[in-house]
Amino acid sequence: MIHAIDLILKKRDGRELTTAEIEALVQAVVRYGEERLGHPAEVDAAATRITEAQLGSLLMSIFERGLSLRETADLTRAMRFSGEVFDCSALGAFTVDKHSTGGVGDKSSLLIAPTLAAAGVEGAPKIAVPMISGRSLGHTGGTLDKLETIPGFDTQLSLPRTMEVLRTCQAVLVGQTPALVPADRILYAMRDHTGTVESPFLITASIMSKKLAEDLNGLVLDVKVGSGAFMPTYERSKFLAELMVSTGEASGTRTVALLTAMDEPLGRYAGNWLEVQECVEIMQGRRHALSAGLIELSNALSGWMLFLAGRAGSAEAGAELADELLRSGAAYGAWLRTVEAQGGDTRIFDDPAAFHRPKAQRVLTAPRAGYLAGMDCKQVGWAVQRLGAGRSRPGDAVSAHAGLESHAKLGDRLEAGQPVFTLFTEDEALLAEPYAMLAETIEIAPEPPLLGPLVREVVRRV
Amino acid sequence: MIHAIDLILKKRDGRELTTAEIEALVQAVVRYGEERLGHPAEVDAAATRITEAQLGSLLMSIFERGLSLRETADLTRAMRFSGEVFDCSALGAFTVDKHSTGGVGDKSSLLIAPTLAAAGVEGAPKIAVPMISGRSLGHTGGTLDKLETIPGFDTQLSLPRTMEVLRTCQAVLVGQTPALVPADRILYAMRDHTGTVESPFLITASIMSKKLAEDLNGLVLDVKVGSGAFMPTYERSKFLAELMVSTGEASGTRTVALLTAMDEPLGRYAGNWLEVQECVEIMQGRRHALSAGLIELSNALSGWMLFLAGRAGSAEAGAELADELLRSGAAYGAWLRTVEAQGGDTRIFDDPAAFHRPKAQRVLTAPRAGYLAGMDCKQVGWAVQRLGAGRSRPGDAVSAHAGLESHAKLGDRLEAGQPVFTLFTEDEALLAEPYAMLAETIEIAPEPPLLGPLVREVVRRV
Repeated sequence: MIHAIDLILKKRDGRELTTAEIEALVQAVVRYGEERLGHPAEVDAAATRITEAQLGSLLMSIFERGLSLRETADLTRAMRFSGEVFDCSALGAFTVDKHSTGGVGDKSSLLIAPTLAAAGVEGAPKIAVPMISGRSLGHTGGTLDKLETIPGFDTQLSLPRTMEVLRTCQAVLVGQTPALVPADRILYAMRDHTGTVESPFLITASIMSKKLAEDLNGLVLDVKVGSGAFMPTYERSKFLAELMVSTGEASGTRTVALLTAMDEPLGRYAGNWLEVQECVEIMQGRRHALSAGLIELSNALSGWMLFLAGRAGSAEAGAELADELLRSGAAYGAWLRTVEAQGGDTRIFDDPAAFHRPKAQRVLTAPRAGYLAGMDCKQVGWAVQRLGAGRSRPGDAVSAHAGLESHAKLGDRLEAGQPVFTLFTEDEALLAEPYAMLAETIEIAPEPPLLGPLVREVVRRV
Repeated sequence: MIHAIDLILKKRDGRELTTAEIEALVQAVVRYGEERLGHPAEVDAAATRITEAQLGSLLMSIFERGLSLRETADLTRAMRFSGEVFDCSALGAFTVDKHSTGGVGDKSSLLIAPTLAAAGVEGAPKIAVPMISGRSLGHTGGTLDKLETIPGFDTQLSLPRTMEVLRTCQAVLVGQTPALVPADRILYAMRDHTGTVESPFLITASIMSKKLAEDLNGLVLDVKVGSGAFMPTYERSKFLAELMVSTGEASGTRTVALLTAMDEPLGRYAGNWLEVQECVEIMQGRRHALSAGLIELSNALSGWMLFLAGRAGSAEAGAELADELLRSGAAYGAWLRTVEAQGGDTRIFDDPAAFHRPKAQRVLTAPRAGYLAGMDCKQVGWAVQRLGAGRSRPGDAVSAHAGLESHAKLGDRLEAGQPVFTLFTEDEALLAEPYAMLAETIEIAPEPPLLGPLVREVVRRV
């Protein structure tokens, strides 16, 4: 019999846990969660049990001592299979998804899912995108909050309905159900209040268990670097990327990670409806100059996904194909099919700008002439959150119309008084603090800044 | 306001906690304990709160990162004052106690308390011994279990009654009440099941908070080394001794630690009543040759206590005085006064051997001629526990009459068939396993072993 205390002692003293021990641990975590919810299941007397204090202690010992690649892969696998999983085998398609570690104004999922779905229906290799997304938390946005601004759009589909939409539309955009990866929900809540969130090993197991539960053949990870990234340094972002790639490959999923810059909001808008609007306009063929970075990132990620799926001979050729699918309206067609299948009212896309109805707005202008040289992108994300677009606690409501419009990008020349940002909110009282945060963080310099490429590095199996 | 999560993050990242943070933490631990018992107190909304998972996480981060001397002293002080404390100021005496990290057959407290009490009443410097003791757990014995074999002896006195016995008898022998150092009881139970028992910093805070709650002017610590010691190496025992000495001195209590050998059971007997019997016979002037090591250790510890109290000019002179107090019957007089004051029936001391009534016994003899060269003293302690003298869980009952008699000491010459141990139990079925454990662990060698001194080293303030 495996006792939780023995796992703690092993890890505390720097020894590796076995595969059987990690499986017993994850089952004990699920049992702990069920009992906490008042659903004690009848279990074998020999089953491993864990208390809340032991969970706190074990998470901290993992935080301090780390996990080996094998332990990380074992933990990910055990968490992945802790509840229901997708079974895409009947689709006869190459299943592929992307995941981002979170950014400001990053709505690339809304372009990538329809792009891949459109690529799949065109040619020989069938492609399906079973995309499970999350909600905004902290300074980053969440795909579900954006989608739910579309009237009628349902992100909480049952598993059979999810598979049905995926089969008919090649893409589905849903939230995590309680039955999927229950171990992660329990561990995530625990990590949040025991000071063990930032462990790259626990982050990898959390992200990868949920993604791999989608039954993926391929996965492209967007790991952010820069002032708006979750990880504080380039090195730590890269270590996380390597850990996630090795964990994905260990489970038989072709996995690639792109390290991409998050030094300013991506594209033209940040905010829930505003980001849908920006993507719809792009897919309708109306590209705004300020959306260039967003399109570049989306195409780079789509390109890798198309390459993994065998639809393009290289990631570069895949990016070109993705751009063509956006320009041709094929992606927009796929978008409309998925939105309709999930109950969304597509009529609002006829005039998306008209659906943007903030109650109040305010323009931040350049205090003097110069180049837009820098900003703390995390602080910009917090400003968007405080305008009402994000939440400070899980379960808080978010505003559909709050957000930020960028009028300039890093490196742009500005004259004194020229607009930099427009702030939108549904409550005028919420304008002052974000305005001050943004005014404080933008840097105007006499010389243009040195800017690196958007995609900094690609991490793949060696 | 101080948040538990911030303390975890600080300690996790290797930073020092402030005095105010440690005080808030200990208050939160006490509050957690009260709420768990269903006694939620009304507290300030700004008071620090801690969850069970956070306690587990914080204990593990302390285990992995350690505490500074200042943090250790602060934690000890905050725990000491987490509940009631003794106030000995009205006694006008030098208050002094000893503490042992736990041994096999170590009944020296039963000799030391009456010795010091007897020293106090004779001369000018008044001495008082407010001794709080514990129960047996694991392979080590507990003073309370020994004392409670005396019919009527009450170890659970109220605080006023404890102070009254101390005032009239100069020594009192009691257990910890729930009101004394409540933070330690909660943390100890937590450490036990979160894999954080062996931290020298947490051990120091646990031991020293309880001892210093006795309002001591002087404290002598007996830190065991060797195969029966709690700490696995000499170096770790010494580190613990140094940490405890520095913590005691930081609180204004003169503190000395002796590193002493625990490679075989101390004295002639191990077991609850048997240990009382051995001490009573010594104090009655009937010294058995096999009690020599026990008397040597008791006098060494008493000698340091008498030196700290100003009753002897050196620890050596103190040890000589202690030996004289044992021989003269003065210590026995003090013993009888304390036992009577705590309700014990002293008539059984008239023929102590007659009170030893085991139901079954078995003799282990030397399998061949040679010298008794070694044993795993911890395994001997577990054998005594399994005979019924100890407990495997807190709250288990212990046998008064189970135990072990040593017929030889390390270095003694044995002929084949000569008795080494006699095992006593109240349940014959319990004989076989301890007999096998003892037979397995004793080493008989052709040459005598090299033996070090009983007191290996003295650790005191530099």
